[in-house]
Amino acid sequence: MTDALLIRNVRPSGGDLADILIRDGRIAAIGPSLAAPGIPTEDGGGALALPGLVEAHTHLDKSLWGMAWRPNDSGPRLIDKIDNERRLKREINIDPARQSARQVVLSVSHGSTHIRSHVDVDTDHGLWGIEGVMETRAAYADIVDIDIVAFPQSGLLRRPGTLDLMDRAMKAGADVVGGLDPCAIDRDPKGHLDAIFALAEKYGKPLDIHLHEPGEMGAFSFDLIFERTRALGMEGQVVVSHAFCLGTPDRDLVDPMIEQIAALDIGIMTTGPASRPAPPVKRLLDAGIRVCSGSDGIRDTWGPYGNADMLERVMLVGLRNNFRRDDEVELAFHVCTQGGADIMRLEGYGLNVGAKADLVIVAGETITHAAVARPPRRMVIKHGRVVARDGVCSRIAP
Amino acid sequence: MTDALLIRNVRPSGGDLADILIRDGRIAAIGPSLAAPGIPTEDGGGALALPGLVEAHTHLDKSLWGMAWRPNDSGPRLIDKIDNERRLKREINIDPARQSARQVVLSVSHGSTHIRSHVDVDTDHGLWGIEGVMETRAAYADIVDIDIVAFPQSGLLRRPGTLDLMDRAMKAGADVVGGLDPCAIDRDPKGHLDAIFALAEKYGKPLDIHLHEPGEMGAFSFDLIFERTRALGMEGQVVVSHAFCLGTPDRDLVDPMIEQIAALDIGIMTTGPASRPAPPVKRLLDAGIRVCSGSDGIRDTWGPYGNADMLERVMLVGLRNNFRRDDEVELAFHVCTQGGADIMRLEGYGLNVGAKADLVIVAGETITHAAVARPPRRMVIKHGRVVARDGVCSRIAP
Repeated sequence: MTDALLIRNVRPSGGDLADILIRDGRIAAIGPSLAAPGIPTEDGGGALALPGLVEAHTHLDKSLWGMAWRPNDSGPRLIDKIDNERRLKREINIDPARQSARQVVLSVSHGSTHIRSHVDVDTDHGLWGIEGVMETRAAYADIVDIDIVAFPQSGLLRRPGTLDLMDRAMKAGADVVGGLDPCAIDRDPKGHLDAIFALAEKYGKPLDIHLHEPGEMGAFSFDLIFERTRALGMEGQVVVSHAFCLGTPDRDLVDPMIEQIAALDIGIMTTGPASRPAPPVKRLLDAGIRVCSGSDGIRDTWGPYGNADMLERVMLVGLRNNFRRDDEVELAFHVCTQGGADIMRLEGYGLNVGAKADLVIVAGETITHAAVARPPRRMVIKHGRVVARDGVCSRIAP
Repeated sequence: MTDALLIRNVRPSGGDLADILIRDGRIAAIGPSLAAPGIPTEDGGGALALPGLVEAHTHLDKSLWGMAWRPNDSGPRLIDKIDNERRLKREINIDPARQSARQVVLSVSHGSTHIRSHVDVDTDHGLWGIEGVMETRAAYADIVDIDIVAFPQSGLLRRPGTLDLMDRAMKAGADVVGGLDPCAIDRDPKGHLDAIFALAEKYGKPLDIHLHEPGEMGAFSFDLIFERTRALGMEGQVVVSHAFCLGTPDRDLVDPMIEQIAALDIGIMTTGPASRPAPPVKRLLDAGIRVCSGSDGIRDTWGPYGNADMLERVMLVGLRNNFRRDDEVELAFHVCTQGGADIMRLEGYGLNVGAKADLVIVAGETITHAAVARPPRRMVIKHGRVVARDGVCSRIAP
């Protein structure tokens, strides 16, 4: 007997009632009234069946989830928040293994089946974060796939020793080389970008660069990124996260950037930030650009928001982009599912025969209805097995 | 025996454990271990006790809540949405009495104890909306207070006959005179504003004007509103809802407007819109301006979002204003509670002895924690009685 599961009475992506047959972790069949004698059966009760949600940008290592509430009184500048966080990590023991486990369990309870996490690498804490998240990745491999980005949160060149730690993080098994505001934080855009592109080349890994820089400054950094992507033949291997500068109202600045991003197959991550200029999701998708989303930091030293629910993120991306029609809200849903899979180059992702059986079963008349109502997920399926039920994950965290 | 209730073991506004004694619909005492023999008792289990949430801007008459899901495919312009809605009202029977009852029950389940609803008045539907919401107001008076704004959603002067209907709405018992984009929709700012200010004067009622107009156009309408407010001695009697133009980056345009708004004690309502320029909440509060918030339309023909949860609105206002520190998030909470009471001039609002016993009991370590976690409300108290428990309202809707 192979490892099999039959999910009866679901509506794949909001379509007609069907059953989904899973064998050996893959979708073996989708159709009405499938015959599958002797196979364990779950009843979907007419709920939607959706592909697993993709949390394509978060920071597993430093959520405060489950710790005592600590009023946030950090300073207003980006660098205040960075320094505040680095200090607090030891002071209140934000243990990356424990905290990433907590967020993983939360995330899976809401239906995320894949996570990309940026993980801090700095000279105060070395590889504490990377090792902690790798521990969680191994311990929870049955319920979620995790992609680790080595992330120089405190700057790369401004704190000597960080680049060497980044190299060690990649050697230790990080999947992606991270970067951060080459002008605004590192104050040496050429040095910063040369270093992270060289690291990506050395390990044959892709890049995912945090770029908060606004307007013309962000456009300049993008230009340097274009240059290196092209020169090194890294088309399709670079993601720029946040990319606030793409939300600049000046189309004469932004449109040529969008053209370059499309030509070099650079991916864009947006959280749908309400208080910042934001990349125009529909225009990017129309240009054929891969776009994903994520929760970013969840209840951390940066701010109190977030719950790791990527259906809530659909709502937030929709609100930020003024998506009102159902076909528009479905673009935000695309970004939180297939878009993330496209960015993370997930093999076998999707709700079709032959794909990996990573699914969410959730009540709703349509995808948009589910995104705005956000009821507890009836079931979450990972590797063909039920890993959460009625909003509760099958695994617990420390 | 008077009508009394003792709520034990709550933390008023996040402070130390206390009991709250309610008599005859008012808070009679707040303190540790109150003695109240023979009085019915509820255990708060250490949850927060907060003043009732104030939904200060919504549209009770036209939510689609509880109706079959209807994919939204309306056109992009404001006027497309207005016309689409007016047509659909009869076509799918968006009955104002039924739909307002549904939203009221939803709203109370989340802890709102006061609602201000704009209600459509137009020549296609006459006073259908006003009468429906008045029916709901009477039928649900035990669980919520409702303030009705007669609202010319389809324009006032561009559709002859509307002004007369507005007059009849005020005569029928509407509490507030509404207005809408005097330039952009009615295309006759002088005519529009003269008419609604005259109506307010005639009935001795305040004004609450929807103003979506951006930038300089909105500033011009504001200027005409200032002029009339001053000339008619209506200081403290005017609210401007949305006021997107206050989110214009140009401080030379906005700062003098803020000065005038403060000087004339004009109230401002903001939903914390993610896709629009938005009034800067902290700067308005710092200037001494009354600021409130609301859900605006909930799952209606304008868009699918919204759930009438004013704690979620705290989050959205916080996200829009980049409020990260707890003291900042508490400003958003203020806007969704006391700010609404200040705008609606509620008598006896607040969590203090002598105030009306309109309360929410909700789990959370602090106000900010409750706002970001948004658990089902443990209890909602209105007029001193429990009207919702564990997220379920004591009343049902048709």
